[in-house]
Amino acid sequence: MKAEIISVGTELLLGDIVNTNSQYIAKELASIGIEVYHQSTVGDNVERLFECFKESIERSDVVITTGGLGPTTDDLTKEVAAKYFGQELELHEPSWEYIKSLIERRGRKAAPNNKKQAYFPESALVLKNNNGTAPGAVLRKDDKAIIVLPGPPREMVAMFNESVMPYLKQFTDDKLISKTLRLYGIGESDLELEIIDIINGQNNPTVALYAKEMEVTIRITAKAKDEEEAERLIKPVEDKIKDRVEKFVYTNDDNYSGESKNVLEEVAAKLLVDKNLKIAVAESCTGGMVSSALIDYPGISSVFVEGCVTYSNEAKIKRLGVKEETLNKFGAVSEETAIEMAEGVSRGFNTDIGISTTGIAGPDGGSTDKPVGLVYTAVHIKGETKVFKNIYNGDRQKIRARATRDILNNLRIELLKLS
Amino acid sequence: MKAEIISVGTELLLGDIVNTNSQYIAKELASIGIEVYHQSTVGDNVERLFECFKESIERSDVVITTGGLGPTTDDLTKEVAAKYFGQELELHEPSWEYIKSLIERRGRKAAPNNKKQAYFPESALVLKNNNGTAPGAVLRKDDKAIIVLPGPPREMVAMFNESVMPYLKQFTDDKLISKTLRLYGIGESDLELEIIDIINGQNNPTVALYAKEMEVTIRITAKAKDEEEAERLIKPVEDKIKDRVEKFVYTNDDNYSGESKNVLEEVAAKLLVDKNLKIAVAESCTGGMVSSALIDYPGISSVFVEGCVTYSNEAKIKRLGVKEETLNKFGAVSEETAIEMAEGVSRGFNTDIGISTTGIAGPDGGSTDKPVGLVYTAVHIKGETKVFKNIYNGDRQKIRARATRDILNNLRIELLKLS
Repeated sequence: MKAEIISVGTELLLGDIVNTNSQYIAKELASIGIEVYHQSTVGDNVERLFECFKESIERSDVVITTGGLGPTTDDLTKEVAAKYFGQELELHEPSWEYIKSLIERRGRKAAPNNKKQAYFPESALVLKNNNGTAPGAVLRKDDKAIIVLPGPPREMVAMFNESVMPYLKQFTDDKLISKTLRLYGIGESDLELEIIDIINGQNNPTVALYAKEMEVTIRITAKAKDEEEAERLIKPVEDKIKDRVEKFVYTNDDNYSGESKNVLEEVAAKLLVDKNLKIAVAESCTGGMVSSALIDYPGISSVFVEGCVTYSNEAKIKRLGVKEETLNKFGAVSEETAIEMAEGVSRGFNTDIGISTTGIAGPDGGSTDKPVGLVYTAVHIKGETKVFKNIYNGDRQKIRARATRDILNNLRIELLKLS
Repeated sequence: MKAEIISVGTELLLGDIVNTNSQYIAKELASIGIEVYHQSTVGDNVERLFECFKESIERSDVVITTGGLGPTTDDLTKEVAAKYFGQELELHEPSWEYIKSLIERRGRKAAPNNKKQAYFPESALVLKNNNGTAPGAVLRKDDKAIIVLPGPPREMVAMFNESVMPYLKQFTDDKLISKTLRLYGIGESDLELEIIDIINGQNNPTVALYAKEMEVTIRITAKAKDEEEAERLIKPVEDKIKDRVEKFVYTNDDNYSGESKNVLEEVAAKLLVDKNLKIAVAESCTGGMVSSALIDYPGISSVFVEGCVTYSNEAKIKRLGVKEETLNKFGAVSEETAIEMAEGVSRGFNTDIGISTTGIAGPDGGSTDKPVGLVYTAVHIKGETKVFKNIYNGDRQKIRARATRDILNNLRIELLKLS
């Protein structure tokens, strides 16, 4: 079954509001295996809306619209949909009674234009709106349907869940079930080269790559009757992928919500807590970002001992015990300083682990030897210290953010080696 | 001039991400008087994309696409656009050099598929990407144009501002010149109520409100022949608005780029530097975010002495000199603790200013007396200490981010009082 989504509203065309309705509907449809190949946005205009219905209905089985069900004359989605199907609008008494009662409850009288919201083709399935005056409807002709829904997200989402999903589910047998692998340390294009044959090699499950800030997500999606069948389809593909790129996979746990931006940080923090290893953090260029990323994990208090933002040389010496000689000889941005910072913070706070960052975040302060973007990070763990050198692209904030992700990834890797 | 926006990407069709690009572009186009009657979203599919170009180009003068410029084989927006215009793709050497240099700086080698991103029709105007590897382009044929832009919002927005707006502006006669007021501490709807008559009262200049995280921006835009005429039109409206809400305006300096998320933080940091007042930071629930926000300002090193992430009671006592008695009697999340933290960190590091945060970021740890979201912040400045209590909505990260913005706003206000 194929669907299209049409969002109706001048405020969308003018960019006054972000279209969250389309995303919501698209995601829900995907979850029950209904394919969406097109989404459109169009204004409250009879000709353009009619044209839009024409294109969409020709390409799909069902068209879902949001917006344009209000009481004013420029709300005309339902009217144009009925016109497209060649159906007359008639007063739907139960809706009119409901609208009147809603308005009267607010202590007002229904205005004549409110009645407009209660008109539907006789053959339509009217959908009750429990959150506003505009009912929705399923308009049908032959084997095609137009489902008109109100525009305000709160009304739309409730109506979609209460009425549209149950209606659509009768037409779908299969479920779409996904498994997500999250990778760090490999770019999207390199990853594709590694597994292009797997990506192209099948269509159930499908394999798709999504690039995010410094990480890539692989989503394996199976169309199946149930979870069990999906798992059976997904497992061999997942294993094949892991055979090639497992070292970059930092989690395949689907309990991490797709929306969380900081799963890598969460994984590192969780490892610390699970292993019950105390940590102290010494930051120069990242200036608090590393501590902040760890503290975003709710359980961290049992292991996070202290963070130091030692931006100045003086603070590095006084707080962390970095040697003045080291700073003079190698500079604040150096392997040697990073090591002394990590070791010093761990020693000073008597922790199992000390981690540090020092670098040139720019925009000034770079040189040929030490360009903007150069960052040293160190992980001191149970008596051993590893130091990492990196040169990051981007502006000041980006460089700092990238260094932060990187050191937490390095910490994660070192923690895994312990087991 | 008429434009259409096409968003390309399977992740949009699946509802994995919200389409913020369309909104951004629509809003910017509206601001220079370019009309948008349609927006569409389509997947990475040659036939459907081709069809979409056909429909859009027939209806408009310029089509702007986002997405599908990546290095992988399913990125094909540019390829289909060129095909639609009947143009061959050729290697654009400067782009290829740039892409290679970017990748090499990261210490990696460009993969063969990266080269794909440097291919363009010879007649195209290539748009440099200062934030990623995918260049954009303006493809032209007869009097029509297709402008292809990268999908990641950060890359798209920068390229749009740097290259697309100047390009499109040549086709519009009048200039649109804006003045921006940034407000903190008042919500969008309250602000609208305050100045609704001003918003509705004229159309040149126009007045528009934009709500962001905890702040509102007022943009006053005049259509004028030159800067001088624009200024003459804008000034009286700006003054009228300021008469009513000046106390919430934290800057009207247009030198702060519209994109920077952290203008408030920058304003506070700049004030510190301008006044040459040394600061130390003590953070509990914000866990490094406040230090990090200050350090994001490049000139901060002259005044930022040290930051302490004292998440545990022990650290608060040892590092900041908070009294054990205070913690026992009032708790770590209390006015008294916040005050002792701010005073202690200032005393300990011998600074003019000490600021502190302590709160319950959740999800656990709340009680009836001290609910999740309760945060105390204190600003100790030249011998005096002010303490602020707030209860924030949102998840753990939101609460921490809100407390961070708030304390930096309070710091800003206290700094202004000094002059």
